[in-house]
Amino acid sequence: MKKKTLFFLIISVLIFTSGLIAQEHHASNLSLLPWPKKVIPGNGQHILTENFSLRISGNFDKRIYRAATSFLNRLDQRTGLLLTNKDISSQTNKTSEGQKMEIRIERPGKTVLFEDESYSLQVKNEKIILSSVTDLGAMHGLESLLQLLQSDEQHYFFPQLTIEDSPRFAWRGLMIDVARHYLPLSVLKRNIDAMATVKLNVFHWHLSDDQGFRVEIKSYPELHKKASDGLFYTQDEIREIVRYASDRGIRVVPEIDVPGHATAILTAYPELASKDTTYTLERNKGIFHATLDPTKEATYTFMESVISELAVLFPDAYFHIGGDENEGKHWDESSRIRKFKKEHQIKDNHQLQTYFNIRLQKILKANQKRMMGWDEILEPGLPKDIVIHSWRGKEAMIKAAKQGYKSVLSKGYYIDLLFDTKTHYENDPISDSDGLNPEEVKNILGGEATMWGELVDANNVDSRIWPRTAAIAERFWSASSVNDFDFLVKRLNAISVQLEASGLDHIKSRDRILRGLFHTNDIEAFRTLSEICRPITARERVGKPYKTYYPLTLFVDACTPDNPLTMHFNKLVRVYLTKQDQDIESEIKSYLLNWKKNHDRLLQKHRSPTLTALLPLSEAIAELSGLLLQKIETKKKFDKVEQERINVLLDRLDTPVLNVRSAITADLKLLSENINTP
Amino acid sequence: MKKKTLFFLIISVLIFTSGLIAQEHHASNLSLLPWPKKVIPGNGQHILTENFSLRISGNFDKRIYRAATSFLNRLDQRTGLLLTNKDISSQTNKTSEGQKMEIRIERPGKTVLFEDESYSLQVKNEKIILSSVTDLGAMHGLESLLQLLQSDEQHYFFPQLTIEDSPRFAWRGLMIDVARHYLPLSVLKRNIDAMATVKLNVFHWHLSDDQGFRVEIKSYPELHKKASDGLFYTQDEIREIVRYASDRGIRVVPEIDVPGHATAILTAYPELASKDTTYTLERNKGIFHATLDPTKEATYTFMESVISELAVLFPDAYFHIGGDENEGKHWDESSRIRKFKKEHQIKDNHQLQTYFNIRLQKILKANQKRMMGWDEILEPGLPKDIVIHSWRGKEAMIKAAKQGYKSVLSKGYYIDLLFDTKTHYENDPISDSDGLNPEEVKNILGGEATMWGELVDANNVDSRIWPRTAAIAERFWSASSVNDFDFLVKRLNAISVQLEASGLDHIKSRDRILRGLFHTNDIEAFRTLSEICRPITARERVGKPYKTYYPLTLFVDACTPDNPLTMHFNKLVRVYLTKQDQDIESEIKSYLLNWKKNHDRLLQKHRSPTLTALLPLSEAIAELSGLLLQKIETKKKFDKVEQERINVLLDRLDTPVLNVRSAITADLKLLSENINTP
Repeated sequence: MKKKTLFFLIISVLIFTSGLIAQEHHASNLSLLPWPKKVIPGNGQHILTENFSLRISGNFDKRIYRAATSFLNRLDQRTGLLLTNKDISSQTNKTSEGQKMEIRIERPGKTVLFEDESYSLQVKNEKIILSSVTDLGAMHGLESLLQLLQSDEQHYFFPQLTIEDSPRFAWRGLMIDVARHYLPLSVLKRNIDAMATVKLNVFHWHLSDDQGFRVEIKSYPELHKKASDGLFYTQDEIREIVRYASDRGIRVVPEIDVPGHATAILTAYPELASKDTTYTLERNKGIFHATLDPTKEATYTFMESVISELAVLFPDAYFHIGGDENEGKHWDESSRIRKFKKEHQIKDNHQLQTYFNIRLQKILKANQKRMMGWDEILEPGLPKDIVIHSWRGKEAMIKAAKQGYKSVLSKGYYIDLLFDTKTHYENDPISDSDGLNPEEVKNILGGEATMWGELVDANNVDSRIWPRTAAIAERFWSASSVNDFDFLVKRLNAISVQLEASGLDHIKSRDRILRGLFHTNDIEAFRTLSEICRPITARERVGKPYKTYYPLTLFVDACTPDNPLTMHFNKLVRVYLTKQDQDIESEIKSYLLNWKKNHDRLLQKHRSPTLTALLPLSEAIAELSGLLLQKIETKKKFDKVEQERINVLLDRLDTPVLNVRSAITADLKLLSENINTP
Repeated sequence: MKKKTLFFLIISVLIFTSGLIAQEHHASNLSLLPWPKKVIPGNGQHILTENFSLRISGNFDKRIYRAATSFLNRLDQRTGLLLTNKDISSQTNKTSEGQKMEIRIERPGKTVLFEDESYSLQVKNEKIILSSVTDLGAMHGLESLLQLLQSDEQHYFFPQLTIEDSPRFAWRGLMIDVARHYLPLSVLKRNIDAMATVKLNVFHWHLSDDQGFRVEIKSYPELHKKASDGLFYTQDEIREIVRYASDRGIRVVPEIDVPGHATAILTAYPELASKDTTYTLERNKGIFHATLDPTKEATYTFMESVISELAVLFPDAYFHIGGDENEGKHWDESSRIRKFKKEHQIKDNHQLQTYFNIRLQKILKANQKRMMGWDEILEPGLPKDIVIHSWRGKEAMIKAAKQGYKSVLSKGYYIDLLFDTKTHYENDPISDSDGLNPEEVKNILGGEATMWGELVDANNVDSRIWPRTAAIAERFWSASSVNDFDFLVKRLNAISVQLEASGLDHIKSRDRILRGLFHTNDIEAFRTLSEICRPITARERVGKPYKTYYPLTLFVDACTPDNPLTMHFNKLVRVYLTKQDQDIESEIKSYLLNWKKNHDRLLQKHRSPTLTALLPLSEAIAELSGLLLQKIETKKKFDKVEQERINVLLDRLDTPVLNVRSAITADLKLLSENINTP
């Protein structure tokens, strides 16, 4: 018996140890994004069969039925299990017993700021339990569960584990500008679906700007008639989007940008302008001078009508009034406005804008809305219940927090600029150096990624927002200690594919654009080139100034700043430089060889001016890849002539061509330097 | 001087001859589809610059402004020229002079049957002239011109030529069934765009069936409330689609399928049923027995309301009443109906259905509509102004034509069955063997491709309709002598890419589905396998009977019956067997090598039950490719053991797996036989 006890002890220790090892391994294989507060991995698997279904218990908003049905449909799409019971409704939920999964909800959730979004998820071999205070939390739990799907030769399964999760910030937003380019409802819906996948909860809808006014206002019909090119959302469509978002636990905050960025408004109603002239919709990008006249009562009558109509359409408590980039040129030029300032002892244009904002704030208050605006509105005289949307610098946010204002950060999350995902990921809304005390920290509500619309339309907007915004979503949801970029990239690749399965166009748009532009199905060589090119940042764009009606299906629109291949190669090079591992070396060599050969492949393609423009860049990459390949193989130092040639080539790689440049310049430079000093 | 004359003569002859040669070369490089009535190639090029624009003159419907603007936008997207003047409207059209292109139109076109759709197009070096009787013809001409776009290193250009064109048949349709699976408006719109690209002019909208009633009828609201799962088109949406189609010169013919296929109607209004019972929406595929009761006055009151509401929404003169597959089981079972038949001296169920149809026809007539129905309605007693839609066999069409009925052919154009494109292409609506005299031939209005909806939804419908329907469109538009399948395939590949650029999902859906199903971005091996697999025909599907709620994002949905690679390989093998050309041999070898290696690539992939199911097929293809490769290299006969093994492998290739089979079985078989007999 003693022998037996010892035997069991040893076995138990072995099982326990291997369990621990398996657990660690397990955890690192989970593609959860954003990463939860707490993950306790287990050993087993919850194996899925065609009979998998779920039951919802407790007290909840009935949208959870739709969310659960959608969850089962998506699970079915990704497995092909042909699930038998996918339709969860008040009828089916009553009768279905003995389900493999239970969702327990305490009370109906509200899509409002600070609602409880926590959930806990237990995946056991026999049963899955998802518990939450509200159905909003349960929906987050369903997204996490879907991210956990794995398979082996015989089965699809969820790995056994326990998750406890809740968000770090309550305001986790994505702003989409539909004024510069209109986006169809279907594009907005698929982006709202993607937001839900990564647990974002605020869709900030930038509805008006110099280039268009995109929402139907029944009391001022010229807005959509004259100032939208016919591309606007009817009030029914607005309701449809709000309902769609709410079904996914997402708030919708509308923005009407005033008093600047008002060309569209003044195209429809020039009598509200600071300058007496006529206006036409702006077709260029930039900052313009069209500004509402804050001294006219008609301006407030107008704003009252617009706000009161929108207040009904958008149930959210917050209303964004823009307020940015008003340079006040037309205010200075108007004798009427100068006179008004004098009479009212208004010192400068900042004070005049504050006068305007205070009047707006009263209108908003009368409509049960809280005012939100870009950080320019932070001037003395405004009540403390407004929200400052910080975009010019983090200082505004810190200043606002110290003054007791709530704020939302977008500085550092300007995804339209096409910076590296890493810069966004590492931009924490709150850092120790901000010098905020715990009370002040509470004023930081969260953040928003901002998709400004100058260079995006339905053709490329998804690939400009995703997958990078998933990294930002993790920054808003997860602890600040979750910040390992390599770990993020690994999960980002997995989630990116899931985002596409939920409807996004961000991966497939590359090939689609290349086929359309080069008029062929045989795009492998073009794809290879596009994958090592990246768009120059929006601010670097030169050449023909961009017009709103230019196509967004060009080579630059096929390239992305965050494609998996580039990020992978970047990591390979970094690892290779620390340890010259043989496997990594041969992987790097295979990349270089492919890029070396690709130029010849391109030369064999059907000719076009676009290809002609790209050839010098492709040639430089090919030559440089060839040189590096040769050096890696021979392990010889570059001589002076070679080194000079390399420098010439690196320069050429960095020179923008058709608004792109090489995305691997830094990696190739590092490699060339490394090979040079053995 | 004589010498000089001789010199010029020789030069002239040389120029003339090279011109002729160039012309022939030219013609074969044009990707026009459908092929025009007359193409006279020229020598030069009309080079495009950013200043390219056009002017419209004459008398026309203003939709041509939108068509011209769309043409310029698409041209800009495919070239990146950044055209300066793309917005063609009544304002800009007045002031723009000296344009490179002129559109001359005689009179406004009507989207009605037999409208003049002819056009002539002259592309000269300095000027492009598009002339037509109606704006419908001009729109066809714009599509042809866009198909002509070419490029060299420095320029995008249109080749100089003259086209004279008009359609062979007046009725060139695509039926889409939205009853089995609802399709979003955006999906319908992109398919209407694609129809316009290949000059189809009738969108036949199958709106009701056992699985759903998809249109809002205000007087019978339970139809969309109870019988659509919430997935239906509002009357505003119907108007939107009709307007969208009309803008592209496309008629919209609605179909309400009665008296059979009526489960959805009877789910909402069981009191109209032949059998007194309750009904629920059908979730299976098949033929069911739910049938309207033709003996009840309530049935006609219902039909009168439905028709009168739809008659306003659909301005087209034709209204499709279905009428197919009514087996009359419930009529036979009902004593009430048996009694009615006796009282009215109605001999059989065919006569009863004719009684029903005659009453319907009167309602339609009162609403200024002509009746159209599937060929079952062709029974004695119906007036000659109805249109017979032939689907069961061409005989019905011939019979109808001989009796003086107009008819439309769909037999042979059932694209849902997933036959080869070639079978559809070779199916001419009229052949000499039909034995029709010239007067009777005139009764054949044209044809319709039919996309039945059992196995398609938004995820895969485009790839089930396209590019194959472009081949059918050529059959309806072009002369019967335009029937070289290889020439079609060449143009089909080019047009397929243009169709995608206009919005279709049919090419990119393959990769999207594979990424979603295999949960990875690294899908090359899966893509390679999918490209040599094809869906088994819809009628061959076995295993778990399909339900309407099963996912349509599975491996079979990534595979297509008409992908360019398969069609190219098929041609290679055919050519190789006639002349064992070295280049062709090496191309065939590279394909075989790739397929041989692909199985190992798949084995290295992450495991899943779907992959496990596919591996035997992949393995058989790999082994067979290896054997063939070896034999091509050694030029040795197969021995008996090898030949037996090959037969085993060919069998395995032909065995359905996950509803697909190898698409290259016949080619590999031909190769194996050919190598065996040197």
